[in-house]
Amino acid sequence: MQQEIERKFLVAGEFKSHATSQVRITQGYLNSNPDRCVRVRIKGHQGFLTVKGRSNALGTSRLEWEQEIPLAEAQQLLNLCESGIIDKTRYLVPVAQHLFEVDEFYGDNQGLIVAELELSSEQEPYLTPEWLGEEVTGDIRYYNSQLMKIPYLQW
Amino acid sequence: MQQEIERKFLVAGEFKSHATSQVRITQGYLNSNPDRCVRVRIKGHQGFLTVKGRSNALGTSRLEWEQEIPLAEAQQLLNLCESGIIDKTRYLVPVAQHLFEVDEFYGDNQGLIVAELELSSEQEPYLTPEWLGEEVTGDIRYYNSQLMKIPYLQW
Repeated sequence: MQQEIERKFLVAGEFKSHATSQVRITQGYLNSNPDRCVRVRIKGHQGFLTVKGRSNALGTSRLEWEQEIPLAEAQQLLNLCESGIIDKTRYLVPVAQHLFEVDEFYGDNQGLIVAELELSSEQEPYLTPEWLGEEVTGDIRYYNSQLMKIPYLQW
Repeated sequence: MQQEIERKFLVAGEFKSHATSQVRITQGYLNSNPDRCVRVRIKGHQGFLTVKGRSNALGTSRLEWEQEIPLAEAQQLLNLCESGIIDKTRYLVPVAQHLFEVDEFYGDNQGLIVAELELSSEQEPYLTPEWLGEEVTGDIRYYNSQLMKIPYLQW
């Protein structure tokens, strides 16, 4: 259980040549309510169950609980999820001492690429790589739980 | 992950002298939707996270996934739950080769006592103890997720 400090950005340039790893992610929601979001995720060959609370007023900090679960159980739980499954590839892109997670979406969110940066405090400085675009931290349209309901191609 | 076959009954007599154990349970819901119910439970000194799917048409069988989690994490997750926390004592009452779970509710559900019997098939026979009352299997008013929203004292 931890407080998660996250900043989120659009991506406006070529980042893939800087990525050190990539993994396919499919995920659904047992509850997409941002007050008590419950997510089932398959990441490569691993399953995870995650609970997130609502963000603070700045949109940068929210309670997060996560546990790995067996892949077969994650697949069964995905079948119980709300309609609308998120499908994306996550790239890890190191920039100086930080690690950006860049998600390239498929399906109904094709064309959307979002970068996330996890920080240990809201004041922590970071370098801005040239491929980084507009900051969208706190904009709930970019929450995966919202992209499931109102996907990017419908914006 | 298993299919749960459960029959549920009201209690119409003295059962406590037959109980072999009892434990206090407090629980809340990260999602009380019966299609994808997500429950946080503190049972004595243990924490649990449970996901249940919708029952079949008979109301006797539903998908259930459960995992023990650290007590401190369960307490934090309870804080994220929907309003309305269930508080009850669970008695285990053996009857022949079966074990009845009898829940005596407190707070807004004071006065309600419900017995549950888990069976390995829908056809499995069982002995009916004299304290067992009317069968209410499949009646969603008695789901804990419903008792939270429309508690017994409001019926």
